[in-house]
Amino acid sequence: MTKEINIGMLGFGTVGSGVATMIRENEQQLSQKLGAKVKIKKIAVRDLDKHRAADLNGSILTTDINEVLEDATIDVIVEVMGGIEGAHEAIEQALQSKKAVVTANKDLMALHGHKLLKLAGDNATDLYYEASVAGGIPIIRTLEDGLASDRISTIMGIVNGTTNYILTKMKEENWSYDEALKKAQELGFAESDPTSDVEGLDAARKMAILATLAFSMEVFLDDVEVRGMTSITTEDIELAEQFGYHVKMLGYAERDEDGVEVGVEPVFLKSSHPMASVRNEYNAVYVYGDAVGETMFYGPGAGSMPTATSVVSDVIAACRNLLLGVAGSRNIDYVNERKLKSQDQQKAQFFHRLLVKDEVGVFSELTSIYGRYGASLGSIIQRPGEKAGEAEVILITHPVSRKNHNGIIDELNQSSFVQKIISQYRVEGGEPR
Amino acid sequence: MTKEINIGMLGFGTVGSGVATMIRENEQQLSQKLGAKVKIKKIAVRDLDKHRAADLNGSILTTDINEVLEDATIDVIVEVMGGIEGAHEAIEQALQSKKAVVTANKDLMALHGHKLLKLAGDNATDLYYEASVAGGIPIIRTLEDGLASDRISTIMGIVNGTTNYILTKMKEENWSYDEALKKAQELGFAESDPTSDVEGLDAARKMAILATLAFSMEVFLDDVEVRGMTSITTEDIELAEQFGYHVKMLGYAERDEDGVEVGVEPVFLKSSHPMASVRNEYNAVYVYGDAVGETMFYGPGAGSMPTATSVVSDVIAACRNLLLGVAGSRNIDYVNERKLKSQDQQKAQFFHRLLVKDEVGVFSELTSIYGRYGASLGSIIQRPGEKAGEAEVILITHPVSRKNHNGIIDELNQSSFVQKIISQYRVEGGEPR
Repeated sequence: MTKEINIGMLGFGTVGSGVATMIRENEQQLSQKLGAKVKIKKIAVRDLDKHRAADLNGSILTTDINEVLEDATIDVIVEVMGGIEGAHEAIEQALQSKKAVVTANKDLMALHGHKLLKLAGDNATDLYYEASVAGGIPIIRTLEDGLASDRISTIMGIVNGTTNYILTKMKEENWSYDEALKKAQELGFAESDPTSDVEGLDAARKMAILATLAFSMEVFLDDVEVRGMTSITTEDIELAEQFGYHVKMLGYAERDEDGVEVGVEPVFLKSSHPMASVRNEYNAVYVYGDAVGETMFYGPGAGSMPTATSVVSDVIAACRNLLLGVAGSRNIDYVNERKLKSQDQQKAQFFHRLLVKDEVGVFSELTSIYGRYGASLGSIIQRPGEKAGEAEVILITHPVSRKNHNGIIDELNQSSFVQKIISQYRVEGGEPR
Repeated sequence: MTKEINIGMLGFGTVGSGVATMIRENEQQLSQKLGAKVKIKKIAVRDLDKHRAADLNGSILTTDINEVLEDATIDVIVEVMGGIEGAHEAIEQALQSKKAVVTANKDLMALHGHKLLKLAGDNATDLYYEASVAGGIPIIRTLEDGLASDRISTIMGIVNGTTNYILTKMKEENWSYDEALKKAQELGFAESDPTSDVEGLDAARKMAILATLAFSMEVFLDDVEVRGMTSITTEDIELAEQFGYHVKMLGYAERDEDGVEVGVEPVFLKSSHPMASVRNEYNAVYVYGDAVGETMFYGPGAGSMPTATSVVSDVIAACRNLLLGVAGSRNIDYVNERKLKSQDQQKAQFFHRLLVKDEVGVFSELTSIYGRYGASLGSIIQRPGEKAGEAEVILITHPVSRKNHNGIIDELNQSSFVQKIISQYRVEGGEPR
């Protein structure tokens, strides 16, 4: 047992020092698992003085990132410095020198993931990024370890803790959207500019990564249909409950013969669906595979300890591949041809809440609009509006194509008796097809 | 890439042929992952004629199990023949000849698991058994891959599909226990003799395996406190709901400074707990680790395809260890000394439903019994009994030791004003300690 694998770290903040501590404390266990010794050789930091007190266990600190990247004895680079530009260049350089790379950088992976993974493959080395999607949930590994023979037809993700926290508090505490957002900011879940969370961009990045892996097909950020959650009201949430649904900011990726559809939007999710019970800042990923059936993985989406734990698992996997001599083999070509569904092929159920004139004949005119677009209705109720002469119509359609749904919305908007589309949601969580 | 790993299979039923098909269909993917070719060399079956039509892809069928076990070129034995005696002997023989073994045999692992794992360690080889606990959930791998530094303090398991199906139907369809059991038998979830499921023995076996791994400490079947679920009524389930709980047949394993407590029994589980939403025949395992926090893994507990998928994952892991030259290294010694909690150290909340005489002073006499044993009450309500002169008292205690709880139950049984303890349940799902 004389083999030794040298690690170089870029960054030594909370996650980085967590990683270093875990590797040191589990030295013996790691040797037993791998049949080789794992050693952190060099750590690039911004400020040497800051780390004088740290227990480095023989690792060399340097402010020169190249001293780590150009060290030929270093086999694996752990990037936990954050940011885009600098990290991007460093990872490119590392992969080009055929070092394996482990990163926790979700923004970087979302922007440059496909290219970096290709670069890793071209250089017969590995790029691991478990911590960049749902930090505490081993979902990338689960999808990679799964066999191609278990065809995955559906992935759903609650992959943004901030929005799930907001929706949980709106439902359980009856807080308004603004109150819940403010609390999330106070607790440090939400950034002072929450756009990327509440508009669904952060979740969309993660869904693109998950869909790529699950379907073995290139899926880009631009392929993800995104709708934000800023217009959700507590009234919608209460209505959802009456109909047997939870409102969730849900990522979904679905595949059938026609192709793939990926989106992130607030949906009405059946209360009996396992994802409906994911509360507060927790994340979960639901996978439906033809052989295994329904599985779900639940855990913290962020946090320095869960992230460090994921990084260490990735380091172990990278070391294992180096020792087996199969580094780069997991970057197999996409098995499936890129094929996205047209709006005509995208089918879903929808929930509509409409404010209409309370006049004779309105109800039948309304239903005839849906009928013209082939949308039969699952449930429909009418109730008095707030003002006299107004009524609210609340309905859920059977599955209808996105194209026809757009047609319905256009007609409703043009109709003389519909005063307002108060809200509309995609409906999810029926039996998997 | 000339290395080749030979597999020998014992049994070729639904699971076995599923395993063979998966390995064949993913030949290329397996080589890429492992840097070696995986080949099923021999398959022992009971009846050759039965398999004349099967696509064997070059594997040799034999009715002589020794032809597989004694083949020196076979590196990994997959035991999917089932049964106890024969499988036990075969696995012992395989491990003694230093072959790695993958088994899906939960009864065997429950009875002889500790000894077989020790035998594997003594022979510097591996015994994998993922499919024997919650077939479609990769929980053994997750616990083994986790680092010792993430101290696990709680495991909860819904690890028996039959009992969870029965409880779901009792709650959602208002079926009686007998009706639900009958339906489960018709659907093939429950055996004609359901004792092992409904008395909690099957779940107890799995909890002993999970606790051993999670706490790195020998936990035996006899260490698990077991209580069956045959006396649960729909009334209890409704009451639970009113108090914000689901009744679940729950395995729990908890550890603190005092030691370990493992049990399986019907509990009142907080409705907001992620495990409360696990419905029908599904299984789930919840893990609380100090670093990662709450995680939960959800999926099918049985079924031939999920089981075959788990077996193939184990085969990959076994091959990897052989190639890395670290076979046997995962059978590390138990890190922690065996230390079970005494009844004085076991603390939990309890739900009681009592039928009492409706007389002046009864309420205060009753609460004084709880007070004498240091059990303060979280909620208590009284309502009229079915007959005049009777009342029902329903209460939930704050945490109290098992020993004191037994004292309370004894006093209640002896008391002149308590006519009957209608039901009692352990309460779970508060914030993790």
